[in-house]
Amino acid sequence: MAELSSRSGTSVASIKYYLREGLLAAGTATGRNQAEYDEAHVKRLHLIRALLDVGGLSIAAVRDVLSAVDTPNLDVNSLMGSAHRHLDRSARTDRSDPRWQAARAEMLALVQRRGWYVADDSPSLDAAADAVTAMHVLDQSDLLALLDPYAQAAEAIAATEISVVARRREPARIVEGTVVGTIIGEALLNAIRRLAEQDASVRQLNPKS
Amino acid sequence: MAELSSRSGTSVASIKYYLREGLLAAGTATGRNQAEYDEAHVKRLHLIRALLDVGGLSIAAVRDVLSAVDTPNLDVNSLMGSAHRHLDRSARTDRSDPRWQAARAEMLALVQRRGWYVADDSPSLDAAADAVTAMHVLDQSDLLALLDPYAQAAEAIAATEISVVARRREPARIVEGTVVGTIIGEALLNAIRRLAEQDASVRQLNPKS
Repeated sequence: MAELSSRSGTSVASIKYYLREGLLAAGTATGRNQAEYDEAHVKRLHLIRALLDVGGLSIAAVRDVLSAVDTPNLDVNSLMGSAHRHLDRSARTDRSDPRWQAARAEMLALVQRRGWYVADDSPSLDAAADAVTAMHVLDQSDLLALLDPYAQAAEAIAATEISVVARRREPARIVEGTVVGTIIGEALLNAIRRLAEQDASVRQLNPKS
Repeated sequence: MAELSSRSGTSVASIKYYLREGLLAAGTATGRNQAEYDEAHVKRLHLIRALLDVGGLSIAAVRDVLSAVDTPNLDVNSLMGSAHRHLDRSARTDRSDPRWQAARAEMLALVQRRGWYVADDSPSLDAAADAVTAMHVLDQSDLLALLDPYAQAAEAIAATEISVVARRREPARIVEGTVVGTIIGEALLNAIRRLAEQDASVRQLNPKS
């Protein structure tokens, strides 16, 4: 385990924790207090750390995503559903609130307008409705002029993302790419959006001299 | 306080907690156990709830963002910096790792390529480098073909976002729009990206019949 720790850059205490939490499979026992770990363990540790540290997922969420990754022959859409479920932060918005229901209908209309194949019960529709409701309640409805520009940008982004992953041959690599692209890709896109906002803010709101 | 609770849809226990944590200003005392709250308190409570529940910020982060909102004459770029700082999840990536430094240089090159005005020490550069490092470590470097498409989409999105906010007249409304647009807008864009991914996945990876 000391060797696994140094090869993966993860502390022994963390490795023990991930073993206990069922994120990492036990090594092959080679003695009373000895186990052998292989390259698959190192790779799995890297994935666990990325999902926790960069993706911001909880331990329970990582366990669920990894269990989807390990399900043989799981179709990619179900796998993506598992990854998305944990990114869709479920806000404590009151879903019986007519404003929330109107916001959800607004999102469903957006999906239909774009001709997207999205399940009517997708949790991402609820997460979008949470944000739209917040904008209405905060009296920032003019920001909802962004819905269509967001959808247009998202459509281009998603098509490129999936095409990069689809170019891979091995199913296992498509599975990894779906999880990493969805979760780590979100962190990356968000950081890049913030950089672009810093630029746009300087240009439009606080022009230099 | 019972009236403030019913008007804002926030429990008395939560209101007391926000008062104690310094997120909400005390009401005007009108008696020994009585205080008067006004419309500004209701609005502030809505903002607190949106930042916590939809934006996913911590109590400490909300306190910091609200303190920036309340700073008189704070320029919009500094305000945005405060909002961004709390969205830039600081991953526990080892920053002396040459892979991280290479990733950060790659992000800086992207910013220069796009001609963006971004401070060299922007935490968003670090957050982007965390995600890029994770993709390299996870052997998913082909996903970095997404860097330029992400930047192109982000540039269009950010320009539209800032122009909607800049259309407002009152400085206080620009301040609110910056915070809400940045933080709640991120949650909204992410949910819409996931919807678009669900569509792209059906189209490209698992076509219907």
